[in-house]
Amino acid sequence: MGNVKPERKVYLDYFATTPVLPEVLEAMLPYFREIYGNPQSMHAWGDEAREAIEKAREQVAVLIGSSVEEIVFTSSGSEANNLAIKGLAQGLVAKGKHIIVSAIEHFSVLHAARTLEKAGFELTVVPVDKYGLVDPNEIAQNIRKDTILVSIMHANGEVGTIQPIAEIGKIARNAEVLFHTDAVASTGNIPLDVNKLGVDALSLAGNQFYGPKGSGALWVRKKVRLVPLMDGGVQENGRRPGTENVAAIVGMGKAAELAAKDMPSRISKFSQLRDRLIKGLPAAIDHTILTGHPTQRLPNHASFCIEFIEGEAMLLMLNIQGIAVSSGSACTSKALKASHVLIAMGIPHEIAQGSLLFSIGVDNNEADIDYVLEKLPPIVERLRQMSPLYAKFLKEKRG
Amino acid sequence: MGNVKPERKVYLDYFATTPVLPEVLEAMLPYFREIYGNPQSMHAWGDEAREAIEKAREQVAVLIGSSVEEIVFTSSGSEANNLAIKGLAQGLVAKGKHIIVSAIEHFSVLHAARTLEKAGFELTVVPVDKYGLVDPNEIAQNIRKDTILVSIMHANGEVGTIQPIAEIGKIARNAEVLFHTDAVASTGNIPLDVNKLGVDALSLAGNQFYGPKGSGALWVRKKVRLVPLMDGGVQENGRRPGTENVAAIVGMGKAAELAAKDMPSRISKFSQLRDRLIKGLPAAIDHTILTGHPTQRLPNHASFCIEFIEGEAMLLMLNIQGIAVSSGSACTSKALKASHVLIAMGIPHEIAQGSLLFSIGVDNNEADIDYVLEKLPPIVERLRQMSPLYAKFLKEKRG
Repeated sequence: MGNVKPERKVYLDYFATTPVLPEVLEAMLPYFREIYGNPQSMHAWGDEAREAIEKAREQVAVLIGSSVEEIVFTSSGSEANNLAIKGLAQGLVAKGKHIIVSAIEHFSVLHAARTLEKAGFELTVVPVDKYGLVDPNEIAQNIRKDTILVSIMHANGEVGTIQPIAEIGKIARNAEVLFHTDAVASTGNIPLDVNKLGVDALSLAGNQFYGPKGSGALWVRKKVRLVPLMDGGVQENGRRPGTENVAAIVGMGKAAELAAKDMPSRISKFSQLRDRLIKGLPAAIDHTILTGHPTQRLPNHASFCIEFIEGEAMLLMLNIQGIAVSSGSACTSKALKASHVLIAMGIPHEIAQGSLLFSIGVDNNEADIDYVLEKLPPIVERLRQMSPLYAKFLKEKRG
Repeated sequence: MGNVKPERKVYLDYFATTPVLPEVLEAMLPYFREIYGNPQSMHAWGDEAREAIEKAREQVAVLIGSSVEEIVFTSSGSEANNLAIKGLAQGLVAKGKHIIVSAIEHFSVLHAARTLEKAGFELTVVPVDKYGLVDPNEIAQNIRKDTILVSIMHANGEVGTIQPIAEIGKIARNAEVLFHTDAVASTGNIPLDVNKLGVDALSLAGNQFYGPKGSGALWVRKKVRLVPLMDGGVQENGRRPGTENVAAIVGMGKAAELAAKDMPSRISKFSQLRDRLIKGLPAAIDHTILTGHPTQRLPNHASFCIEFIEGEAMLLMLNIQGIAVSSGSACTSKALKASHVLIAMGIPHEIAQGSLLFSIGVDNNEADIDYVLEKLPPIVERLRQMSPLYAKFLKEKRG
């Protein structure tokens, strides 16, 4: 049976990474062989490349409502997060060494903060509630005189919950503490504006909104000191060395432009598909728990824990049926431990093991969702029949 | 005259960056919209992407004679250098804090070492001779008990000089000191083998040998501890987080394969064009000095100082004639200071200002070189007529 072709190919893992849109690839193509100069070069080849990345900078700035010159291009969202946490903290070390993050941050924030902790910084990790929400009061209560940086993600890629960033922004601003948000999972998917959010720095990644892999950016408010992660050239105002990845930057710019333009229609389409899944899956499979906030969540994101079985086994059997989804975050899914996000939300370890994350994108339609709703229940049933946990549950139920 | 089209377009700035070869672009194309999975994902989309980057890892390993699993993909040569210097030094901090580099390293090595120096490491910067050569004895004499790392570049991108890396490698090995070489300017241009060179780590960049911008790698010998620059995911064995830039990695792999295959013919063609320039330019323009070693130099590299004038002015006037070259390194050329490389070689500041760097590539031919030999002399003549330095020289000569 292993070699039988699946009836359908359904990619529902857009949060792991997106394909690039046709218009994005088209925009990138001239920059591989035709307009191939180094943007730092003093000749026509360099000028053309430089103009291209400055246009992309504008496109990204429009998407997040920032000034153009405040955007630092990076090679990924993870790099942007590392640059933010380490670069902002090191820039303020004279003022203090206390940092606040939440327990459900992406590892590129959480582990970067842990690295700083080992180097002598102090770290407070604030908890979240059962929906994955940070309580702004927790931030207010934990800010001290030596607090230099708060970093709370805009939306969580594993459970879809959107944080009250604007509220936290006000608290940080009143306390005169820098505020960074990891908006990798939300930029391009929902409207956001750095000024309305009241943040000082924001990370994003192109391959979360149909730009290419290898593209990311950190926006940093003017006059905020940022110590570079890497030394070298004068690129990105001395904040990020290395020959600029012109094609990737151009691609992210185009993707940003399209995201801004198509956002209302994408949100409308995706949230309908999401709701079909959120309604359909627990109806088709008992003991299925929606994870994350029921309403305050990303429009293209549906995440569940399916009790008594393991996510990994479901992924493998869904793959045989041509369905691609995640369990836990993309970066850690190969090393399947229970997600730190679900654990922080108070979900018991054995239930957290059965997590499934569906992320919806431009190529999906209702038939994709219905295909999942058809194929997943028998998979779950089969796995539960092999599950000692399920046998125990049934036995106890029968009493 | 500014809008008159030049007779010819001649790109002689391949060291600033290369275009990608047609075969490289072709290899990359499927990875934008067709095979777009995240290599860390547990499904067919992820498997295909993972297989693609592992194939590329093999292609790069073949080019440098290394084991496959020792290669860490990065986003650029500059990132590879930063990862090497900071990551290797921090991995050995228990043993000592002394680092040796040369005075002509790329800023991504030199400034990374300076950053470590500010953080409490000790730095010895060894000099070079008038050809830009490091004396291996200098390394031997400067190694101390607490020396943990030596980093000497394989070939210099500004003056083309190739260092005696294998000799330095023996010295480092005998002293049990880690040895890194920045081979960004040489990998893919001349044969090299990490074992014959006797190095423990080697940096390379895909866009120096017709791979895409945004591709680079650090090779690190097995069992050598490397502290990552960035925290986050499990990618690259935990050494470099962030979703892998699959298309760029695939492109660099293909470019590595082509470089290995075509190296003899490229070297033969390029060195003929180089020699035509090295012979022709000083014959056509008096007071022209070849910089770098006369024979121990890269086959596709010719660099000069043209006395009494400034490189920047020549670049601008060459650009009007459709000719692209560099003055100083690509990363610093926009901020035209005299090159630290030329100064370290003992070239006086006012002569170093007039540096020109021609780097030759696959699209060049003899007519390109002859076009330069035709167009540059009148430019130099015109600039010298405006030069107070030249007036002074003529006056003194007439005496």
